[in-house]
Amino acid sequence: MTPDEGFMRMAIDVAKIGQSQTSPNPLVGALVVRDGVVVGQGAHLRAGGPHAEVHALRMAGDLAEGATMYVTLEPCNHYGRTPPCTEAILQAGVSRVVIASVDHDPRTKNLGISRLRDAGVEVQVGVLQDEAQALNKAFFHRVDTGRPYVVYKAAMTLSGHVAADTGHSQYVTGPAARAQVQQLRRNHPAIAVGIETVLADAPRLTVRDETGAATGILQPTRVIFDSHLRIPVSAKLLDEPGRTIVITTEQAACDHSEKLSQLTAIGEVEVIPVAQSAGHLDLAEGLAAVADRGCNSLLLEGGPRLAAAFFERQLVDEVVIYIAPKLLMSGKSALAGSPSTYMGEAISLRDIQVEAVNGDWKFTAAVDYGAAKDAADEMR
Amino acid sequence: MTPDEGFMRMAIDVAKIGQSQTSPNPLVGALVVRDGVVVGQGAHLRAGGPHAEVHALRMAGDLAEGATMYVTLEPCNHYGRTPPCTEAILQAGVSRVVIASVDHDPRTKNLGISRLRDAGVEVQVGVLQDEAQALNKAFFHRVDTGRPYVVYKAAMTLSGHVAADTGHSQYVTGPAARAQVQQLRRNHPAIAVGIETVLADAPRLTVRDETGAATGILQPTRVIFDSHLRIPVSAKLLDEPGRTIVITTEQAACDHSEKLSQLTAIGEVEVIPVAQSAGHLDLAEGLAAVADRGCNSLLLEGGPRLAAAFFERQLVDEVVIYIAPKLLMSGKSALAGSPSTYMGEAISLRDIQVEAVNGDWKFTAAVDYGAAKDAADEMR
Repeated sequence: MTPDEGFMRMAIDVAKIGQSQTSPNPLVGALVVRDGVVVGQGAHLRAGGPHAEVHALRMAGDLAEGATMYVTLEPCNHYGRTPPCTEAILQAGVSRVVIASVDHDPRTKNLGISRLRDAGVEVQVGVLQDEAQALNKAFFHRVDTGRPYVVYKAAMTLSGHVAADTGHSQYVTGPAARAQVQQLRRNHPAIAVGIETVLADAPRLTVRDETGAATGILQPTRVIFDSHLRIPVSAKLLDEPGRTIVITTEQAACDHSEKLSQLTAIGEVEVIPVAQSAGHLDLAEGLAAVADRGCNSLLLEGGPRLAAAFFERQLVDEVVIYIAPKLLMSGKSALAGSPSTYMGEAISLRDIQVEAVNGDWKFTAAVDYGAAKDAADEMR
Repeated sequence: MTPDEGFMRMAIDVAKIGQSQTSPNPLVGALVVRDGVVVGQGAHLRAGGPHAEVHALRMAGDLAEGATMYVTLEPCNHYGRTPPCTEAILQAGVSRVVIASVDHDPRTKNLGISRLRDAGVEVQVGVLQDEAQALNKAFFHRVDTGRPYVVYKAAMTLSGHVAADTGHSQYVTGPAARAQVQQLRRNHPAIAVGIETVLADAPRLTVRDETGAATGILQPTRVIFDSHLRIPVSAKLLDEPGRTIVITTEQAACDHSEKLSQLTAIGEVEVIPVAQSAGHLDLAEGLAAVADRGCNSLLLEGGPRLAAAFFERQLVDEVVIYIAPKLLMSGKSALAGSPSTYMGEAISLRDIQVEAVNGDWKFTAAVDYGAAKDAADEMR
């Protein structure tokens, strides 16, 4: 590890302090280093708050002059809620800037770098680039696609069942895995379920502590996919702390205009009508609306029909599946999509990581739609 | 590791040479050691062939006099297909015998040890006992219960599907996992499926090499559970090398006496009628018949209804489940038992081992019916 890599690693670690707090902004960490000594450091903590570079420069004060700045993401070059960081860097007299990753935001992409270079600052790009990009995969995904990075989560028995035939599912996994799920919810700015899950299970969809109480001010945005606007105005989750977004069809919004008014009269509830095709709402358009409302990522918790629809439209980016070491002789499956004909229709997963979680097992993987298509084509 | 343990480990390793060949007999290895030098060694290789002790004593010849014998299982003390090993040991003049595990066979249990001790031989029991018992868990299970040790095998997607809705299942896992399944079949003297699997898939149920040809003379006994004797006389597997046992009900044997005669006229086919209750054949009685025909263990390969019936009657001892990193949106489950009401009805697994198999994952576990019952009771 070179000295540059060593300082960049520290900057990446500092960036992680903002985990789950910065959406729609990225995680960013910055260090100011002079003569091999760290004289300033900062992390971006909340959208609207100062950027990492500004925190680090403030801490460094006059020592920033002639120093090197390490920053995990290309400094912004535009006026957003805060002034451009490139100007702050130039004003402070920083002579060298080491950047891990170029920004994907079209307002900054490569423009921050050229602004600094044009002003005579030595700029080096790409130190620990892969790690810095992994840190912001959700942010980059939203900027690149206009949709949140979607993580599908399920907990099932080793026989592949998420619930008994009655729907009873408490509990599939043990306490340690269930605590991890709370942590997963904390790490995503939005959680989505289908209306059938709302009607059947009346979930609260909040991050809760051991006592079951909702914790902290940063509750995820609850997203309900509800084609026919069936959600009751009295649904429990509408009263939970935090924002609720109901995605429905334009048709349903017309048909149930009175309910729509009642719903939007509740504090933090928004109903978003999207287009429909073949009786189904346009999931991608719904996701775009969630991205527009500042969510870099979304945790998809089911139910089986909604989850299968997400996969069938290639909208899931990552899966987290907990497997409990038990077998149900009959029960409900995690996914309920269109009937399958060939095993080759299965959607492939890659980059699989398996982890023991106190008796249960956690599979984390990326979804590889290309591989599924190739295999299906091959079968035919 | 003491010198005794060192020699016993060698004896255990030698015993493994007989793997999958000795049923209904156990695996046994023996060493004759004189002044710290191995002067004879042997393994039991086939039922009806010499026992390990006899091989080792023959090799040692006169050097056995005054020597120490290490043997993984208590020497037999009865006339079976071969004379008692205790007599051979005494005739050879062995002065000390170190035994890993007492036999469970009532004809020998503790009698071999006392015969040797009464004759003045120093006998030590229990060196590496756990490993020696693990080596023969199937043999001990058959001797203790009168039924084969049953291993349930399944291969499913991470969405819990063993096949597409059409039944298409080629292939769930990759080549490495499929090769392991051939090895699993080789390690069990019997393979069982239900009649529905025979009718739907026309499986051959043989151990095959890469070209698909059945290999070697030690094909497992095929066991078909067929309550209504629906198996066609033309079924492909009846012509494969090796023995086929069809377990049916006494009623079906009466109703289809002509087919019964036709089936038993085929070379190595036997039809075994067992009792029935509530329209289902008595699986435990069927398994007892398989044990009586010399099978220490049985690999249960499905289908979903037969497998669930085995679990529901607590007849599965171990599971081997391969999981492929892919998701089907809809498909067939591994198990199709009675509808479930509570998650607590799930059957618990313990001693779980997870292993990566070239992209797929292998779960091996013991079945813990006690834990399932406790949990279900708790739910009510």
